[in-house]
Amino acid sequence: MDPQTIGPRQPADAEPPAHTTDTGVTRRVVLAGALAGGVGAVAGFAGGRASAGGGAAPGIGELSYPFRGEHQQGVTTPAQQQMHLTAFDVTARDRDSLIDLLTAWTRAAENLTQGLPVDSMRVSKSAPPDDTGEAFDLPAAGLTITFGFGRTLFRDQQGRDRFGLGDRLPAALAEDIPRMAAEKIDPGRSGGDLVVQACAEDPLVALHAVHNLTRIAFGWATVRWTQLGYGRTSSTGAGQVTPRNLFGFKDGTASLRGNQDELLRDFVWVAEGDGGGAADWMAGGTYLCARKIRMTMEVWDELPLRDQENAVGRDKISGAPLSGGDESSAPDFTARTPGGSPVIPEASHVALMHPTRNAGVQMLRRGYNYTDGSDELGRLDAGLFFIAFVRDPRQHFTPLLARMQFDLLTQYLQHLTNSVFAIPPGLAEGQIYVGQGLFEDPV
Amino acid sequence: MDPQTIGPRQPADAEPPAHTTDTGVTRRVVLAGALAGGVGAVAGFAGGRASAGGGAAPGIGELSYPFRGEHQQGVTTPAQQQMHLTAFDVTARDRDSLIDLLTAWTRAAENLTQGLPVDSMRVSKSAPPDDTGEAFDLPAAGLTITFGFGRTLFRDQQGRDRFGLGDRLPAALAEDIPRMAAEKIDPGRSGGDLVVQACAEDPLVALHAVHNLTRIAFGWATVRWTQLGYGRTSSTGAGQVTPRNLFGFKDGTASLRGNQDELLRDFVWVAEGDGGGAADWMAGGTYLCARKIRMTMEVWDELPLRDQENAVGRDKISGAPLSGGDESSAPDFTARTPGGSPVIPEASHVALMHPTRNAGVQMLRRGYNYTDGSDELGRLDAGLFFIAFVRDPRQHFTPLLARMQFDLLTQYLQHLTNSVFAIPPGLAEGQIYVGQGLFEDPV
Repeated sequence: MDPQTIGPRQPADAEPPAHTTDTGVTRRVVLAGALAGGVGAVAGFAGGRASAGGGAAPGIGELSYPFRGEHQQGVTTPAQQQMHLTAFDVTARDRDSLIDLLTAWTRAAENLTQGLPVDSMRVSKSAPPDDTGEAFDLPAAGLTITFGFGRTLFRDQQGRDRFGLGDRLPAALAEDIPRMAAEKIDPGRSGGDLVVQACAEDPLVALHAVHNLTRIAFGWATVRWTQLGYGRTSSTGAGQVTPRNLFGFKDGTASLRGNQDELLRDFVWVAEGDGGGAADWMAGGTYLCARKIRMTMEVWDELPLRDQENAVGRDKISGAPLSGGDESSAPDFTARTPGGSPVIPEASHVALMHPTRNAGVQMLRRGYNYTDGSDELGRLDAGLFFIAFVRDPRQHFTPLLARMQFDLLTQYLQHLTNSVFAIPPGLAEGQIYVGQGLFEDPV
Repeated sequence: MDPQTIGPRQPADAEPPAHTTDTGVTRRVVLAGALAGGVGAVAGFAGGRASAGGGAAPGIGELSYPFRGEHQQGVTTPAQQQMHLTAFDVTARDRDSLIDLLTAWTRAAENLTQGLPVDSMRVSKSAPPDDTGEAFDLPAAGLTITFGFGRTLFRDQQGRDRFGLGDRLPAALAEDIPRMAAEKIDPGRSGGDLVVQACAEDPLVALHAVHNLTRIAFGWATVRWTQLGYGRTSSTGAGQVTPRNLFGFKDGTASLRGNQDELLRDFVWVAEGDGGGAADWMAGGTYLCARKIRMTMEVWDELPLRDQENAVGRDKISGAPLSGGDESSAPDFTARTPGGSPVIPEASHVALMHPTRNAGVQMLRRGYNYTDGSDELGRLDAGLFFIAFVRDPRQHFTPLLARMQFDLLTQYLQHLTNSVFAIPPGLAEGQIYVGQGLFEDPV
């Protein structure tokens, strides 16, 4: 078979399935057509999409989200079941190569998030396939891909400005998160020049995305660290029920929801002028703050229920604050026991972290549980990969983290990694690569 | 609130949901009732089951499988999306303690697989809850729990017979899998006295099961190793479509299906007399053979499509043998190219492993992909957690493994672990613990 290049196209007699791209084609159809040298073989492959290959259930599997928009996807998108997040260090030496990488990534991401192969499909038996293939039969499965920039992209650990971006470094990204008590940060699994957050309803679809983006990056960037997560730990969708964390408590009750536009504007999206001009390229973007937090479940599990609830400040089953009501009730921090002590202990998680105790600051939390197996002592190596998207980490993240050191819950936690990435705004129509504003002259 | 013990029971005015236990209750309802000291509070919790907490889609989430039966569940059960498998070493010193552990595990597993809390619920604010709680809001999500015994339970590495089981050791379990080329086995992540395989459509449900079984085992057994997997790599259900492995190929096309009763009898289920009498307690059981096989995707991805297909012996997109037809077509190993060489290379995976080349032996494969993140060189730490259930590893597994050493595919694989466990038959009504026949006098 001769090499040939074909783009996504509409097979002659196929109905466009719902939720796919304008061209209505899928990975399967594109590839089958490509290998057959035409559309003749398509019929044999069409039909099995949603149920094929062990993907998520049909309804969820068919979901896809637009890649372009005012903001990047994967921030206010209702949290999917699976996360595959990889940080990269750039090995390319110059600005043009970095732009080439971002351009190739953007093109691939735009296809992948619509359930298509990474690229227009060059198919030849004599060449490696463009797409690695493990998601051939799978729909988009709600895949979102979110790109971000670490501080070292602007100025590396030695202070070098490798890509001429030093003067565009947002002040919000310039400062380190201060060292906290009870943390044991692994620098090799923190930070990085670039980040790719892939979330999907199907872990194979998320893996496939990161796998192919990593392959595309060959020669330009190398993987620094990877974290997998599952079972979102906060509800970011309007209708999503608050999930439970690995301590068995509802987590994220007071988290921002993706439809609270006014609060999102105040606490999530960067506005023009936020960075004093130098960082106006970030307008419409946000900052991803991530901490890998191991939870010592073996210790926690043996606490009396009362101690667990006092540490959290909420009822374990209902999620209601200890002052009463239901999950959505406002905590009454003034309530006292007959003995005169606060019904919600002052050092409980809710008392320390509730927005009303933090100048009204609200975080859009979008973390995931992680389970990395068991450790050499047989303990579950598991916990929370905390992610919050904030407008300014200095105001909306670090102060809360500092308060959390005094949290009763903290004695059952260990913070293992610490990362902050600038998430540039979404791509407008006509833009070629994500973060394009960073590389263009200020207006 | 005073301590109280309640068992699963039917709230006065609740409708039994489909697919739950005879009593028709769920974790949520049991716990809510328990904490409220009655059924009064139940109404507030009922209703949100299937959609709560980020579980699988409602239809799949509601699935549950009977724990008792001729065979254990999780063998011919259509493979779920998620696997959480943990091997344990027994620290209990005597036979009665081992039986106590198996009894407690059995009771918990019977509840968990029906979407219930681990035990009848003793609820007191002054005591740790019986159930760790992270699955409170979640349905059974197709959870299966499968228990197995390793050779060291019968005779440990020093040859000691700790539990008086030495003379019941099945001959099929007595031999080591011989050392193979291209393997780098980690003994610390292989074998173990006991194994628990939890599979579910929701990773939190599988974690919750292993978490609670591990907690129950405290003082009796400790975790030796754990492996998580996702996206089954073989279709074990009658209607399940063949999924793809991380090399992008359909995997398990020729695997046994869970409804092929005659073949299951020949190749999966142990029959009376198989072990020459000493192992008749295994009749109706099977052997779980597991190998963690890392796949070097970075190398594979750069192979020309022709080389990939020649290594597998099948077309990458369709799964058809290179001799033609479709996925279900029988490979024609006699087909020759115009140049006279076999169309399906003799060293291809399909030519070496196909049942017709292995005395008709067929394996029930039920493995999972794994992704443990990325390694220190930035490569994907990922591959296949191979699981096959066989009637006798000496006849139905080791010979195939030995042939696989010459497989073209093998140069892109590294075998990292090696485990064989005896999976005793299912529990009959009236039996108290899994594997009970092993501990009782031979009839």
